[in-house]
Amino acid sequence: MGTEPRRAIATELRVRGVAVRAPLTSRVGDIGSHIASELAASGVGLRRGDVLVVSSKYVAIGQGRVYHLEAVSALGDARAIALEAGSQPEFVELALRESSRFLGHALGIVITARPEGITPNSSIDRSNAPGGAVVLPPSRPFRTADEIRWKLERAADGPVGVVIADSRVLPMRRGTVGVAVAYSGLEGVLDERGSPDIFGRRLRHTYRAIADGVASAAELVMGESGEMTPMAVVSGLGDLVDAVAHSSRETYVSPSECLYFRAISGSRG
Amino acid sequence: MGTEPRRAIATELRVRGVAVRAPLTSRVGDIGSHIASELAASGVGLRRGDVLVVSSKYVAIGQGRVYHLEAVSALGDARAIALEAGSQPEFVELALRESSRFLGHALGIVITARPEGITPNSSIDRSNAPGGAVVLPPSRPFRTADEIRWKLERAADGPVGVVIADSRVLPMRRGTVGVAVAYSGLEGVLDERGSPDIFGRRLRHTYRAIADGVASAAELVMGESGEMTPMAVVSGLGDLVDAVAHSSRETYVSPSECLYFRAISGSRG
Repeated sequence: MGTEPRRAIATELRVRGVAVRAPLTSRVGDIGSHIASELAASGVGLRRGDVLVVSSKYVAIGQGRVYHLEAVSALGDARAIALEAGSQPEFVELALRESSRFLGHALGIVITARPEGITPNSSIDRSNAPGGAVVLPPSRPFRTADEIRWKLERAADGPVGVVIADSRVLPMRRGTVGVAVAYSGLEGVLDERGSPDIFGRRLRHTYRAIADGVASAAELVMGESGEMTPMAVVSGLGDLVDAVAHSSRETYVSPSECLYFRAISGSRG
Repeated sequence: MGTEPRRAIATELRVRGVAVRAPLTSRVGDIGSHIASELAASGVGLRRGDVLVVSSKYVAIGQGRVYHLEAVSALGDARAIALEAGSQPEFVELALRESSRFLGHALGIVITARPEGITPNSSIDRSNAPGGAVVLPPSRPFRTADEIRWKLERAADGPVGVVIADSRVLPMRRGTVGVAVAYSGLEGVLDERGSPDIFGRRLRHTYRAIADGVASAAELVMGESGEMTPMAVVSGLGDLVDAVAHSSRETYVSPSECLYFRAISGSRG
């Protein structure tokens, strides 16, 4: 409230890709320990104040979130949507189970709402998995980010941040950017209410999506999966590394508050 | 088509904020020369292969895109929308003039389509301008990015990239990330068609929005306007700096092709 001065975020960042020794193809006992071990082997050091970004798919595979569609039974809703969308009923069934709300479909893709926003196919990915298998999004992502962070802090000898990153598209824009599915130890959404120039900037500029920005920066040095670079280390974020556990309540905006949703669904009439 | 190998993007990036000597409050003769001069004075060097990111507002003010609402006459459409949205008719008039299509309104904000995607208030900004004045988005942004690049290349003694960056929100997410309003000399949208894992990834992963990722990384070290850091230099993008003039055709996706648009506006019925 009022006129507290605007914070400087960072003056210089360093973003380094972390190559791993082998692709992750099945569950590991403890994803945090696995990441810490791969990071140590990579030669890219993690120091206090750094943020580790890891791909959501890498985390999900490590959690054993690989499903075979033939083991899935599609219910009536999924069958009806699949017929209309031209998709597989079992795939749609998983997409519905992984989401809080079905929003529609387009171009064979089922669009759903999840805690991390609007997702194509509930972020379930068919690529880089054996025939018929799919990779679901990580389970309990914020809690998982916490657990990864605790493991990494032991090695880094101080507070670090963790971001679990996926890809997303902006409306009416071509191409993917990074999005933070979850984060820990990082001020992922910076509240700038109270900064001087608030008039007319309510929705556009009141909050800054720091974790999404970090994920997007990291994506530039990470591979989509084929390059064996499922992690990155971002250094220089200073006080934004806050040693705090966060939750999706910080990043989630409901459809009724979402600018796009309201405008596109016709707030006029 | 086929199996051309996936390209490595970058392994390490450096992102540096560029502080300027004074805020820009009025038109400058040549925005490219002005930026080159401020960059030289900042002590942050620009070398061949680097990308300069500059805020769209800084560019727009330098172009003299500051308008006083009392000089604007609102037509009937703008008056009707303003009444319904609870906004100023003159402001809405400018937002309509600056857009290709009116999409709706929400929370007092007019939502429009522009070449750079869906925009709140057509990216017209009321903040940090004298009473009643507003800042319109840059004019001819891709051409302007070209002109800035040519000026910078003279000083950098080789090819560099330029990104003109604004802020944008992702659907159902809190906070702003960077978006590239325009770019030059940078492969802003990376076409990954032909890479091995294409099945099921058509819309999500076929293209990577490199320029948007660069803008988002830069936003972490740039101020929204009060911090006097309207620029950043991103080093390490390698072959993505391509010495080519680009256009909004690369980044633009029409509403009928847009996943969100189709899903939210009800592709089912």
